[in-house]
Amino acid sequence: MKATIVTIGDEILIGQIIDTNSGYIAKALDKIGVQTHELLSISDDKQHILDTFESLQNKVDFVIITGGLGPTKDDITKHTFCEYFNDTLVINKEVETHVIELIESVMKRPASQMNKDQALVPSRCEILFNQVGTAPGMWMKKENTVFISLPGVPYEMKYIVENEIIPKIVKEYKRPYILHKTIMTYGQGESLVAERIEDWENNLPEFLKLAYLPAPGRVRLRLTARGTEREILEKTINEKVTSLAKIIGDIIVGFDEDETIEVVLGRLLTQKQKTIATAESCTGGKIAEVFTSVAGSSNYFRGSVVSYATDTKVSVLGVLQETIDEFSVVSSQVAKEMAIGVQKLMKSDYAIATTGNAGPSKGDADATIGTVFIALATPNDVFVEEFNFGQPREKVIDRAVNKAFEILQKEILKNL
Amino acid sequence: MKATIVTIGDEILIGQIIDTNSGYIAKALDKIGVQTHELLSISDDKQHILDTFESLQNKVDFVIITGGLGPTKDDITKHTFCEYFNDTLVINKEVETHVIELIESVMKRPASQMNKDQALVPSRCEILFNQVGTAPGMWMKKENTVFISLPGVPYEMKYIVENEIIPKIVKEYKRPYILHKTIMTYGQGESLVAERIEDWENNLPEFLKLAYLPAPGRVRLRLTARGTEREILEKTINEKVTSLAKIIGDIIVGFDEDETIEVVLGRLLTQKQKTIATAESCTGGKIAEVFTSVAGSSNYFRGSVVSYATDTKVSVLGVLQETIDEFSVVSSQVAKEMAIGVQKLMKSDYAIATTGNAGPSKGDADATIGTVFIALATPNDVFVEEFNFGQPREKVIDRAVNKAFEILQKEILKNL
Repeated sequence: MKATIVTIGDEILIGQIIDTNSGYIAKALDKIGVQTHELLSISDDKQHILDTFESLQNKVDFVIITGGLGPTKDDITKHTFCEYFNDTLVINKEVETHVIELIESVMKRPASQMNKDQALVPSRCEILFNQVGTAPGMWMKKENTVFISLPGVPYEMKYIVENEIIPKIVKEYKRPYILHKTIMTYGQGESLVAERIEDWENNLPEFLKLAYLPAPGRVRLRLTARGTEREILEKTINEKVTSLAKIIGDIIVGFDEDETIEVVLGRLLTQKQKTIATAESCTGGKIAEVFTSVAGSSNYFRGSVVSYATDTKVSVLGVLQETIDEFSVVSSQVAKEMAIGVQKLMKSDYAIATTGNAGPSKGDADATIGTVFIALATPNDVFVEEFNFGQPREKVIDRAVNKAFEILQKEILKNL
Repeated sequence: MKATIVTIGDEILIGQIIDTNSGYIAKALDKIGVQTHELLSISDDKQHILDTFESLQNKVDFVIITGGLGPTKDDITKHTFCEYFNDTLVINKEVETHVIELIESVMKRPASQMNKDQALVPSRCEILFNQVGTAPGMWMKKENTVFISLPGVPYEMKYIVENEIIPKIVKEYKRPYILHKTIMTYGQGESLVAERIEDWENNLPEFLKLAYLPAPGRVRLRLTARGTEREILEKTINEKVTSLAKIIGDIIVGFDEDETIEVVLGRLLTQKQKTIATAESCTGGKIAEVFTSVAGSSNYFRGSVVSYATDTKVSVLGVLQETIDEFSVVSSQVAKEMAIGVQKLMKSDYAIATTGNAGPSKGDADATIGTVFIALATPNDVFVEEFNFGQPREKVIDRAVNKAFEILQKEILKNL
């Protein structure tokens, strides 16, 4: 079972927007054992769309298309889709009623002709009902390939994938098993990890594939097994992970696909009934953003102060003006006082603070670009570490955020 | 001049990471008049890569490939690239020296053999030097197509595109002109805007293309002109934008491609020498994130309090416990007190506060899912509006963030 995901829209080809739809669809397909062969982004051009459909015909089982279903003149997907199947557009009554109701209730005005035309669909297509928008999804089969057209608005696309497409494929198609196991490691680079596990990697069976997904400060290892015997796949993957843990157990922080350090930390904080707050300067709120991305984080994440202006470090966090004058705003002393300040303000058990110079130009302080101080206040103590994360700006911020989580995790594990 | 951008990596095809590299490259090419024909993501599979190269040979002028250049076993791009050109890998001395120095200075350890092997490149390739990482970019021509291979780490890829590829194409290739003009509109939906400008749109000349880019609460219109006579393109685009402004001037907020509402607002605040702060509950810091994404925002953005736990609204922002008890935490009264509280705390002229229920489940309050209160404190007053942004969660948050900016902009324009 193979799929190709096609995104239609010039805005993607000129880099005006990033396609996040395809990744979402690929992940949803992967979970039910449908392998994504390629992702493709093409222009809003009739011939380009027709050529693409033709080139995919009978090459894959599913072609999932997003974009170009809006009501305006530049939205040509539906007409082109209809033409590819030699079909004609007809009004679907159920969709029309839904469109009229949705426009009236949300927009507080009657539906226009342009709105109602959203209910025009190819006469032979199966409708994939879009409860949260006006453009329906469409499912049509030609020879060995199913073509599915979806709106490009992410939450509308997601609604249809989750509620219509996935259940339909699961019900109507037999699929093989694809199992993934992700191993999260921290603190060592990709090549060092690879050297440590070289023998283990060379002895993996043919149906297991290992991938390295490096990011600043962390490497994810992903084992993928494909086959028809679920039991054998599961057993082999588990054995291989156990033997891997014997080699690099010191840097493994978790195993779940979603087992990022923030999830692990969240669980530790919940178990220990401890809370955390952050005071962020150079990381601009990104540590808080990562914390709050985890469901249930309100149990341990108290809140954050983004002290963007230098003087809010004094007025909100209670950093002493003398400390800034004497040591500069990028200093270990200021980082410590920020951590203690936000810990007190948010009444949290732990608090992390960052101050640094992420570049590209020097800010309010003389510190070298790349310098970051990370302070951690614990219930009894406060300590700080200095780093130089190099350049460019985004690498500095990413590494600072990862390092902050690493420091916090080490401290909490120490006290378990 | 046409390019196809190819991303290599199974992690993209299973939806584990989103490809942002291709959008960056497409944007950079568009600026110098190179049109991106397609974006393509394929697997880490030798035959798949070779087939893809073959299918693009002489179809486009440039094939730009990212990913698969790391030092580990699953990184096969370089060997496959070399095989496609019937070439052999040789050590490039300059790259080797750079790799050794980089590993020693950043990792504080000697370079391993695996690190040094990063300096192996096809003997006939032109090196695109990677100052910020170990994998060099490679440029090789076959018949009418240039193949360029780049590392997948975003900041390394960006460094090479910006410092090597773009200057080289500009210097060595003649290109046509591609001009874009983006018109930012607020407050009306895509189909309503389309109806208002229908006559204008139907009278656009052949070489001008109009695109609608809708997002909750805002529609961007993009006019694209392609041709060889820069002056004619510019003149026509400007005339058309002027006539458009006569029709929908009431909803146009800016013209620049980067002229988002946050940029417009930042300029207004800077001109008036006014500052702003935010107190966010249901928007979780996203308003602050949008503010701080604008360069120079430290001139007017004082900071933010993400009062994630309900009681931090009381302890940090000074909301009265009685107000929460009487009206619930999702109420116009609490929103007002949050805005006044953060305005005082951050010593800002304006302050925005949000409290609401974004779903998927009900939180600390009884409010319907989708309900959001947005309060704005001005130097003399505070007011609040109630909205229902429907479902799902991400739409509620996006619309709340956009609406907050719209409310602030209206207020500031009123006092100009």
